[in-house]
Amino acid sequence: MTIDLNCDMGEAYGIYKCGDDAGIMPLISVANVACGFHASDPSVMRQTVRLAKQHGVRVGAHPSYPDRDGFGRRRMEMEGEELTACIIYQVGALKGFLDAEGVALNHVKPHGALYGAAWHDETVARAIARAAKAFDAPLMAMSGTGQGTWYQDEGVEVIWETYVDLAYNDDGEIVITRQHDPVTAETAAAQALRSARDGQVQAMSGKLIDVKCETICVHSDTPGAVEIARAVKDAIAEYS
Amino acid sequence: MTIDLNCDMGEAYGIYKCGDDAGIMPLISVANVACGFHASDPSVMRQTVRLAKQHGVRVGAHPSYPDRDGFGRRRMEMEGEELTACIIYQVGALKGFLDAEGVALNHVKPHGALYGAAWHDETVARAIARAAKAFDAPLMAMSGTGQGTWYQDEGVEVIWETYVDLAYNDDGEIVITRQHDPVTAETAAAQALRSARDGQVQAMSGKLIDVKCETICVHSDTPGAVEIARAVKDAIAEYS
Amino acid sequence: MTIDLNCDMGEAYGIYKCGDDAGIMPLISVANVACGFHASDPSVMRQTVRLAKQHGVRVGAHPSYPDRDGFGRRRMEMEGEELTACIIYQVGALKGFLDAEGVALNHVKPHGALYGAAWHDETVARAIARAAKAFDAPLMAMSGTGQGTWYQDEGVEVIWETYVDLAYNDDGEIVITRQHDPVTAETAAAQALRSARDGQVQAMSGKLIDVKCETICVHSDTPGAVEIARAVKDAIAEYS
Amino acid sequence: MTIDLNCDMGEAYGIYKCGDDAGIMPLISVANVACGFHASDPSVMRQTVRLAKQHGVRVGAHPSYPDRDGFGRRRMEMEGEELTACIIYQVGALKGFLDAEGVALNHVKPHGALYGAAWHDETVARAIARAAKAFDAPLMAMSGTGQGTWYQDEGVEVIWETYVDLAYNDDGEIVITRQHDPVTAETAAAQALRSARDGQVQAMSGKLIDVKCETICVHSDTPGAVEIARAVKDAIAEYS
Repeated sequence: MTIDLNCDMGEAYGIYKCGDDAGIMPLISVANVACGFHASDPSVMRQTVRLAKQHGVRVGAHPSYPDRDGFGRRRMEMEGEELTACIIYQVGALKGFLDAEGVALNHVKPHGALYGAAWHDETVARAIARAAKAFDAPLMAMSGTGQGTWYQDEGVEVIWETYVDLAYNDDGEIVITRQHDPVTAETAAAQALRSARDGQVQAMSGKLIDVKCETICVHSDTPGAVEIARAVKDAIAEYS
Repeated sequence: MTIDLNCDMGEAYGIYKCGDDAGIMPLISVANVACGFHASDPSVMRQTVRLAKQHGVRVGAHPSYPDRDGFGRRRMEMEGEELTACIIYQVGALKGFLDAEGVALNHVKPHGALYGAAWHDETVARAIARAAKAFDAPLMAMSGTGQGTWYQDEGVEVIWETYVDLAYNDDGEIVITRQHDPVTAETAAAQALRSARDGQVQAMSGKLIDVKCETICVHSDTPGAVEIARAVKDAIAEYS
Repeated sequence: MTIDLNCDMGEAYGIYKCGDDAGIMPLISVANVACGFHASDPSVMRQTVRLAKQHGVRVGAHPSYPDRDGFGRRRMEMEGEELTACIIYQVGALKGFLDAEGVALNHVKPHGALYGAAWHDETVARAIARAAKAFDAPLMAMSGTGQGTWYQDEGVEVIWETYVDLAYNDDGEIVITRQHDPVTAETAAAQALRSARDGQVQAMSGKLIDVKCETICVHSDTPGAVEIARAVKDAIAEYS
Repeated sequence: MTIDLNCDMGEAYGIYKCGDDAGIMPLISVANVACGFHASDPSVMRQTVRLAKQHGVRVGAHPSYPDRDGFGRRRMEMEGEELTACIIYQVGALKGFLDAEGVALNHVKPHGALYGAAWHDETVARAIARAAKAFDAPLMAMSGTGQGTWYQDEGVEVIWETYVDLAYNDDGEIVITRQHDPVTAETAAAQALRSARDGQVQAMSGKLIDVKCETICVHSDTPGAVEIARAVKDAIAEYS
């Protein structure tokens, strides 16, 4: 089994830049592409899909709560059916650009507060799963949460992932913040190797936590993102 | 050759209603479904696609300028590439719901000011065509305008349509207004028969204008829309 | 002391209608006017302010979570400072139209999920109070919740209100739903009289609950809203 | 008469940055603050007003077409009344933050495509003027266009301005682009001195054009904006 490096990409918007997509794309194997609800717009989505294609990077949809103002980092109270429709819309929109470029949809990965909500809220997790199922697409999930179990229960394949540029708490959950704090490339690389080789991550407290790891996530808007991605890529070279 | 009856559908939004979709759907053969940029939202799109499927009505995408405040009835200055991406996004989003229901995308038909802009603005028309081409979908167009010619020149199939609940001027163009004025069912039925049988429409001035007619459009937000649709359906029964 | 009749007004949006504002305005003394974040738009706000002025109805701002898609009926996770700014924006926008018409800002009343959130969430309540304070405007609040107490603690005057077209639970809280269920004019009038005369409301269970009542709220989007407003107005005529 | 230095400020949005407001604010005397329709959000507006207050910079509203996706740089077809309401909304929203900080509204200056549209479109110019009049606020305008004349005809005071970081054509109009091209600090300073001292600007062609100049505009999102602002400030020190 090989381990992928995935990254949230295409989070610019209009005249606003976000992250160094051109610098990171050559370093990753899978891109989670924003769908216009927390970031991006149709032109950015098109460019991002083309950039991914050019580098042979597989593309998944990165849908969000409908919250551009808050970059999808604020939890919202939505009914299950409403949320499923909201995600189908976004994944469909991305798939339009993929179809136009002859690229397959690789997976779906919820963004920000939606990703976090699915850890423990069964309604949210099942709503996400039903949207992914409409596209017959696997979902990325973090082990140690309810997320993946509910996804599988809805008949959706799960790709297990770990994080190397966000902190884990002792429950094995990452701490989602509205701005990403800096992490050193060394720390990230060590966490990556730990998860790829040992199936473990180290929490902020130092505690080692068992995780399933098929893909490792790095962020493009973390300070020094390109260096981090490169260090992580090198660290797991043996396993990818 | 049979003549279809098409209707702009799914233009509700959140708690807001618009048109009697349930009343009209049984009367038409083709629905142009709003994609969230001038009207609709993911939940409404999903319901509309399901309603169409239930009645065996074929479904096309009805993309718009990004102008929910103005219901897509205000022309906007957009670059060609930007517009193509904007339409791919919307058609893709609708296609997500079609995929989920196992329904094929029948066509694309631009909405409101975008439809009007494509009559004489070659950049707009070609930008629309390039988006439709990405889905290999035909475009509805009105004869007597540049629209259809530019679409065909981009390699996109055209479905020619006429209007029976909007007024034509002497140049053979319909007058797009921000609120639809009432038209009697008799007037609409007469216009429908004229275009289906004779390939002609009558302008406001009384002038008869030659038109290509493969499909006839009725609107769901015109006052008395259901009665109009029924009268038109009956009037062209022989040709459909 | 006289008791006012207040109503949420100006909730149309673009081509979409909502409620019979023209029918209700003559029956009320205070209008809570939507500010464009859950409903309304600049043109609707202007018309609503003018309509209120014409009928001598005092005008308050009716700000919401930034959630047009959900009509402000979905709770959102927002930080206090962010929420205060969000409300100042909306109240300021409404005040622009009031200034243009030479009408004073009467009060601020949060809408939907925001109103509900302020019952028990101190951060939300204080954030709302700080926005109202920037305009030196009183806030409407429901007795039996934390809302009013926190408002007063921030130095903001409170106008206590009761509801007659929504159901109370046994804790003295109204049940906010995404669509307003019908209530008979008789039921509403009885609840109005009870609160105006006795300072009590009857919960769904039949339980009588003591409430502070300086103003009574009716909704413009409840089925039969005009009849309800008229019945309530008549019922409390002696106290208003 | 002294000549002010004005700058479009507060154009960040959520997590997205735009321009070095903290660097530029100490160098200018007047800030045109974005109102949330092309850029900014309530939190950014609040911070920008506070930053201006801290530096003793006077604050005007910088309203736009409702076009966040296009940063207000795309012309839109709007009716006069609709546009007036749209601007009152934005100016009112900004005034909310000014009221909260005890700062007066200094002026109104339309942004981007709206500013450009007012040069030759009388309906647009008069619609803007009617909004400014509701606040009794002067409007910034560029001499050599119809703008200022129509503003004055509506009874609104005009503040005449020149540009030093955008190119003039031979008709004395600046060329509004969707991204600002670089200009050297020397070029900008020379243009500033020319307009402050001589009442002239130099067009791209070299032609000298007579202009009225009471204020000089620099942009915060031009590359090297802080250096340009400093050079311009020094160049016109004698006249300001």
